[in-house]
Amino acid sequence: MPTSNQQKIVCGRPLDECLQIIEGFHNWMAPGLVLGLFMVDRARNLIGEGIEADAIVETRNCLPDAIQLFTPCTYGNGWMKVLDWDKFALTLYDRFTLNGYRVWLNLDKAKAYPNLYNWYQRLVSKKELPLDILLRAILNAGDSVLSSAPIVMTNLSRRGKKAKTRVCTRCGEAYGAHQGLICAACAGESYYQLAQSCARNVACQ
Amino acid sequence: MPTSNQQKIVCGRPLDECLQIIEGFHNWMAPGLVLGLFMVDRARNLIGEGIEADAIVETRNCLPDAIQLFTPCTYGNGWMKVLDWDKFALTLYDRFTLNGYRVWLNLDKAKAYPNLYNWYQRLVSKKELPLDILLRAILNAGDSVLSSAPIVMTNLSRRGKKAKTRVCTRCGEAYGAHQGLICAACAGESYYQLAQSCARNVACQ
Repeated sequence: MPTSNQQKIVCGRPLDECLQIIEGFHNWMAPGLVLGLFMVDRARNLIGEGIEADAIVETRNCLPDAIQLFTPCTYGNGWMKVLDWDKFALTLYDRFTLNGYRVWLNLDKAKAYPNLYNWYQRLVSKKELPLDILLRAILNAGDSVLSSAPIVMTNLSRRGKKAKTRVCTRCGEAYGAHQGLICAACAGESYYQLAQSCARNVACQ
Repeated sequence: MPTSNQQKIVCGRPLDECLQIIEGFHNWMAPGLVLGLFMVDRARNLIGEGIEADAIVETRNCLPDAIQLFTPCTYGNGWMKVLDWDKFALTLYDRFTLNGYRVWLNLDKAKAYPNLYNWYQRLVSKKELPLDILLRAILNAGDSVLSSAPIVMTNLSRRGKKAKTRVCTRCGEAYGAHQGLICAACAGESYYQLAQSCARNVACQ
């Protein structure tokens, strides 16, 4: 993607390399993830190197992948927590001192880039605003549409402990004991039915 | 890590390369993620190539990263959903036909590998069972401790639509409108306090 920012260093790498990493992992060049790259860069720079930082992301859309790709925090290692608030914001915090930095998209600043603003506020359709034009707007805007603030964690800062498990007497699988006497799936909360070719678990390989 | 499986192909790559990818992303060679690699391999092989498959993971621990690394599904692109059931199981399903395969750790089969079984059932401490010995047990066990079954999705199969957002009159940020008249953070559900050096958002850069 041609841009004057091409040689810029973001999250410790050339911007082009970051964009390739995004596309390789997320499977398309999602605009929110490209904007998220600049947000993670800001948070990383603010908190500084050598800090063991955990992450909070305030939306499920796109932004969690920016944290996962450009910090050591992933969903599976438990160092990133995701809130379903639909706020385009993230926090990196020192997991020992609980001091950190929150970075967010500042809508007032975003108005300087109408394509970015209109995309984020869903004022234009994908047809009216092609992806390449939107991405160019985001790359041009970069860090300039963000705000950040030092924060102190008051909640969610603990890494989750693994819950106690037991073996379900119905399916024979281990499950989180908090679910009750049988696992959630056997209790009727499942998301699947066995296909007819496999009517009983025991018959399955 | 020396193992007889070193040249094995898993998830389309040499096993060694998969293990490097795991360590690079997850930041340590988590045993659950190594086991998850074999689970994703089984699910991928069962569903076959050329199927646009979404994923369900039945635990927050480790396994989501196996899906994210070895399928196109990530948390941020919305193609992977995570259930907090603490069940060591995952499903890949065709997002159009809703047919798929569930793969799980079969505890009966796992008993053939006492180190793996004792680790999973938390019957031994990390001190009693060093990581390298546990990883060797998992690599030796590989696919043989898994079961799988064809399933049909009955729930959770829809990709989430982006929710309606509005601008919070307190903080000026966009948020999911379902939260009410102000955003969850301004309504007192926040996880942070502004640090004293930044007592008002408006003063922050």
